[in-house]
Amino acid sequence: MIIVMKSGSPEVEIDRINSELASWGLTPEKIVGKHKVVIGLVGETADLDRERLQEISPWIEAVLRVEQPFKRASREYRQGEASEVVVPTPNGPVVFGEHHPLVVVAGPCSVENEEMIVSTALRVKAAGAKFLRGGAFKPRTSPYAFQGHGESALNLLAAAREASGLGVITEIMDAADLDVLSEVADVIQIGARNMQNFSLLKKVGAQNKPVLLKRGMSATIEDWLMAAEYILAAGNPNVILCERGIRTFDREYTRNTLDLAAVPVLRRLTHLPVMIDPSHGTGWAEYVPAMAMAAIAAGADSLMIEVHPNPSKALSDGPQSLKPDQFDRLMRELATIGKAVGRWPQPVPALV
Amino acid sequence: MIIVMKSGSPEVEIDRINSELASWGLTPEKIVGKHKVVIGLVGETADLDRERLQEISPWIEAVLRVEQPFKRASREYRQGEASEVVVPTPNGPVVFGEHHPLVVVAGPCSVENEEMIVSTALRVKAAGAKFLRGGAFKPRTSPYAFQGHGESALNLLAAAREASGLGVITEIMDAADLDVLSEVADVIQIGARNMQNFSLLKKVGAQNKPVLLKRGMSATIEDWLMAAEYILAAGNPNVILCERGIRTFDREYTRNTLDLAAVPVLRRLTHLPVMIDPSHGTGWAEYVPAMAMAAIAAGADSLMIEVHPNPSKALSDGPQSLKPDQFDRLMRELATIGKAVGRWPQPVPALV
Amino acid sequence: MIIVMKSGSPEVEIDRINSELASWGLTPEKIVGKHKVVIGLVGETADLDRERLQEISPWIEAVLRVEQPFKRASREYRQGEASEVVVPTPNGPVVFGEHHPLVVVAGPCSVENEEMIVSTALRVKAAGAKFLRGGAFKPRTSPYAFQGHGESALNLLAAAREASGLGVITEIMDAADLDVLSEVADVIQIGARNMQNFSLLKKVGAQNKPVLLKRGMSATIEDWLMAAEYILAAGNPNVILCERGIRTFDREYTRNTLDLAAVPVLRRLTHLPVMIDPSHGTGWAEYVPAMAMAAIAAGADSLMIEVHPNPSKALSDGPQSLKPDQFDRLMRELATIGKAVGRWPQPVPALV
Amino acid sequence: MIIVMKSGSPEVEIDRINSELASWGLTPEKIVGKHKVVIGLVGETADLDRERLQEISPWIEAVLRVEQPFKRASREYRQGEASEVVVPTPNGPVVFGEHHPLVVVAGPCSVENEEMIVSTALRVKAAGAKFLRGGAFKPRTSPYAFQGHGESALNLLAAAREASGLGVITEIMDAADLDVLSEVADVIQIGARNMQNFSLLKKVGAQNKPVLLKRGMSATIEDWLMAAEYILAAGNPNVILCERGIRTFDREYTRNTLDLAAVPVLRRLTHLPVMIDPSHGTGWAEYVPAMAMAAIAAGADSLMIEVHPNPSKALSDGPQSLKPDQFDRLMRELATIGKAVGRWPQPVPALV
Repeated sequence: MIIVMKSGSPEVEIDRINSELASWGLTPEKIVGKHKVVIGLVGETADLDRERLQEISPWIEAVLRVEQPFKRASREYRQGEASEVVVPTPNGPVVFGEHHPLVVVAGPCSVENEEMIVSTALRVKAAGAKFLRGGAFKPRTSPYAFQGHGESALNLLAAAREASGLGVITEIMDAADLDVLSEVADVIQIGARNMQNFSLLKKVGAQNKPVLLKRGMSATIEDWLMAAEYILAAGNPNVILCERGIRTFDREYTRNTLDLAAVPVLRRLTHLPVMIDPSHGTGWAEYVPAMAMAAIAAGADSLMIEVHPNPSKALSDGPQSLKPDQFDRLMRELATIGKAVGRWPQPVPALV
Repeated sequence: MIIVMKSGSPEVEIDRINSELASWGLTPEKIVGKHKVVIGLVGETADLDRERLQEISPWIEAVLRVEQPFKRASREYRQGEASEVVVPTPNGPVVFGEHHPLVVVAGPCSVENEEMIVSTALRVKAAGAKFLRGGAFKPRTSPYAFQGHGESALNLLAAAREASGLGVITEIMDAADLDVLSEVADVIQIGARNMQNFSLLKKVGAQNKPVLLKRGMSATIEDWLMAAEYILAAGNPNVILCERGIRTFDREYTRNTLDLAAVPVLRRLTHLPVMIDPSHGTGWAEYVPAMAMAAIAAGADSLMIEVHPNPSKALSDGPQSLKPDQFDRLMRELATIGKAVGRWPQPVPALV
Repeated sequence: MIIVMKSGSPEVEIDRINSELASWGLTPEKIVGKHKVVIGLVGETADLDRERLQEISPWIEAVLRVEQPFKRASREYRQGEASEVVVPTPNGPVVFGEHHPLVVVAGPCSVENEEMIVSTALRVKAAGAKFLRGGAFKPRTSPYAFQGHGESALNLLAAAREASGLGVITEIMDAADLDVLSEVADVIQIGARNMQNFSLLKKVGAQNKPVLLKRGMSATIEDWLMAAEYILAAGNPNVILCERGIRTFDREYTRNTLDLAAVPVLRRLTHLPVMIDPSHGTGWAEYVPAMAMAAIAAGADSLMIEVHPNPSKALSDGPQSLKPDQFDRLMRELATIGKAVGRWPQPVPALV
Repeated sequence: MIIVMKSGSPEVEIDRINSELASWGLTPEKIVGKHKVVIGLVGETADLDRERLQEISPWIEAVLRVEQPFKRASREYRQGEASEVVVPTPNGPVVFGEHHPLVVVAGPCSVENEEMIVSTALRVKAAGAKFLRGGAFKPRTSPYAFQGHGESALNLLAAAREASGLGVITEIMDAADLDVLSEVADVIQIGARNMQNFSLLKKVGAQNKPVLLKRGMSATIEDWLMAAEYILAAGNPNVILCERGIRTFDREYTRNTLDLAAVPVLRRLTHLPVMIDPSHGTGWAEYVPAMAMAAIAAGADSLMIEVHPNPSKALSDGPQSLKPDQFDRLMRELATIGKAVGRWPQPVPALV
């Protein structure tokens, strides 16, 4: 249930309402939007009487029930206003959100060694990426496959972050690694296979770093938003949703089926920013550019693209990785569409 | 198996080779590309010796096996060159193909009455559509649902065609209607549910009108190309492939999952032009614009969009139909991206 | 909507009610069950007033609305009573239905030649089958694959029918073949790919032979019952439903996923008999016995099993065909379970 | 790669071979079957020369490569012999395996209070169950839904175990709970959503309690066996596989699609025992009996069935739970088929 405050409601009145609600045994949540303040009430509202709530203050504009099973993740919870997930990086804050330029995340599937990760970071930064992706802990179908270099890879990511100034996004697979991973990661990724690892969701919800939540291979949109709700409900409002392909009957020519309609569907249902991963979404480098182009055109807020200096020798996911020069070319093509739809970063005037 | 002729091979030599092959009991098929002529040999080639074929003529550049199960539909069959499907319409020929502007097909799900179909035709033409879609025979899940006005609707389509000059695309459900339908339709549509109605495929393959082949709800890309192969093998080279959403586990917020990656995948596998139907692909009008935008960006050659003067009163598929003014707006937005990617029609200089 | 008559309602009164309803412009359908007569009213009932109907006669026990979109196929339409589909065969009538022994249908995918079809017929009859299956017209993914011997195969089926006394089940692919096929077939099969070929459904609904309706590869249970409804609505009450596996994400070890839960689900939703085809359902002969056993245990009314004298040389579907001796063994194993659940035919006392 | 020893190979020779292999840097694994001993070599075998291995000892019968990506889980790894997972319970050891009677696991979705769990345990034991299931930690789609009573529920399970003598199976969701859970559980369950939580798989693989591994909602058979491989590779050979329904396009009448063909497929691919969960597999109590019957007929080694004293008041999964008297009846019906296929426990002759 949400309480929408009138424009210009005094802070002191909002605080008074919150105190009153708390005295009823509720835990109100204050959401400050561009135009209005909303007070969210989740979880204990079945018996609440809307009219009685309305009477608490003349500054209350409306009291509304959120009909969706996801509450904090729902668009209504923020009165239709999109969230902005602001991530501090060495190069300055980067904002993920509907009214901001497309944020490009790029890098290899796994961190293999210092030279490759640093050089890739510099290269993708030069092409316009804002974040470096790279796996230290890798979820692999086979226990005999390369499992990532683990903690030592985190140090290499730190080096690449320092060298490039890019933010770092890397995946967590075990809650026990949360502290060490948080020292390096600017955004913590929950992979598709852990989307409903509810213990892990609660733990990343109880810390401060923004969370990138990949959609599970057979998760419905609703399952996915409910997974985001676990993180939001645990106190972390900074969640980015990433579509990376779902599992369907046809797996011959693509590894997954990229569900690009998730972009407009999520736009209607939630205020959270939406990222598209065409690399996992198709599984083949040659299809990545077309789907990256389509993603911007569909309205995605961010793209995650695998780039590897030498895909044929990659320790994981080589076939879906672009070479650096392919990535350069893709960024130029993306710019064309990005500008056409008004989602491309403005060049900052050079001062020196 | 294909025989690639050297550039500049004399016609008479090609004819001689064909006669020779025919004398071996084969049925060669001559494919004239922009740069080269290819002679296709399908179906009886398992025992053929490539070297023996090569020796028939010094003008033969190469003899290649097509490894894919689809032969005539494969990109290799035309030596990598895209097909152009040229459709005569009252307003002049319209070309579907990779190197041509995006072709927009628009109109209602069903033809309901003369006024609605004629006015819709004029309206979508004004916005830039080249074809009118409209169902006379409707495949409906329920036998008690509106089944289309049948033959009388064909007359109304003819009237709309005459009034607007647009080409007409309408679906065939029963081979018995082929003659009467061909009198009106410029392109004959095979619906998703009949994609593997092989009897019907053979019959539309044995006539001259171009065929729009929608992908079956659970057809793999390979199944779909094999269905196209039925039409090509029966003698009709003019096939357009239309992706309209596949059936997956998530059907709550969209009616189907639009598999947009089919665009680059088909581009690699086949020379046939590719259309996207975001209306059936999502099932909801509000998601159509985003997916139409994405489709051009992904490289689609054509779009099919449902437009109805009054969707809430439509006899079928109202929820996924745009209103005419929404379609006008979408066409303007599409133009932005279409121009950015070089696939938008150039305005013809007015001569009068 | 259905009108349930009281037990013992006089025929003359039922006729009077039907006349009265006809005079209202309705088309009542009389359904004679074991215990009661029901009058069905389909399609024009939205505005009917239940109380006004009730008042037509004191012999009316109840007037009920069928909530499901499938009306004639719904269990309610027969007041919960199972249908019996009685098929005359040279060896006498065979009944498909919940309260009858399991009916086994066996034979090759395609009719290849007279010797193979006649010998297979005799062999499966000896093992206990009541029907011979065998394709004359084959739906094949590739236009270059064996398409069945067509009409000449029908003659061979006729010979096998005469030699064995078994009923014949064969597939129709083109409505133009209906007459010639009906001369031989005791049951006409609609294949999975034509489950929503509505023109064909209407035509088999308008003739007298019982129809075996296979479930489409991605048809929901509701889609499937609606397809049956097309046949029932066209006047043919003798429909048997056959589950043959659906298409899912896992196709590595089985060709399809056999949805065996369809048996109890259909039992609740419909009065029509249910057949299971474990041959197509799994795609591999070695998995057929386990799934055939499971099908009887789940309550299936009939089984369709592919048997070929020499699977490794079969012109189609060899890998999923049992050899005759494997079929013999399976029938003995099935008997064990069939007897345990009371669905195995009693041996007829030998008179000679 | 596996080294198959000849029958009667002396222990000392096998030890010698193992030492020799260890001296090569390999980690051989000795598998003692009923008839033969096999030495398994996993993970480092790509460069090994089969002939050179063969020459180590004249007692080596054969050196074989396991072609499947799952090695220890493959049937070949045990030379075709089925595993027996022996679980000690207060009532004595219970064996899961192909050549043993069906093991029935029953109980509520969640442990709600002491009275309900103890009474349910006694009741299902009386009907023939060998294990009690019951969730202390519950994976729920919504963060606002009942999450299980956690550690306090473990105490209640312990009480029910003591009262009934049944073994206890309960799910682990967080590796941090492993110790406390192991004090009560006789078998540790990994739920469908954690099937590819590789961190957790490694941890349950590194302890001694047998593990019940549920199939993920969209896991292929191969994915699933690879998940089992994680546990086996970490040192725990006691893994039971549980099919609980996969996610498909049709979710209207059943919650999942129970893939019963997994039983014969797994029988061919792996030596591990197979359990079927028709409660989650269908989602509705009324379909559970038919699918439980089908599961035994298909050859399942074990069944997991939800039983709740009052399903309409259950805190989770009520609609799919049987009432105790329904469970009693089902067990009697199962006995009929179980005896017919030779998988029903023999009554132990009463001694007192």
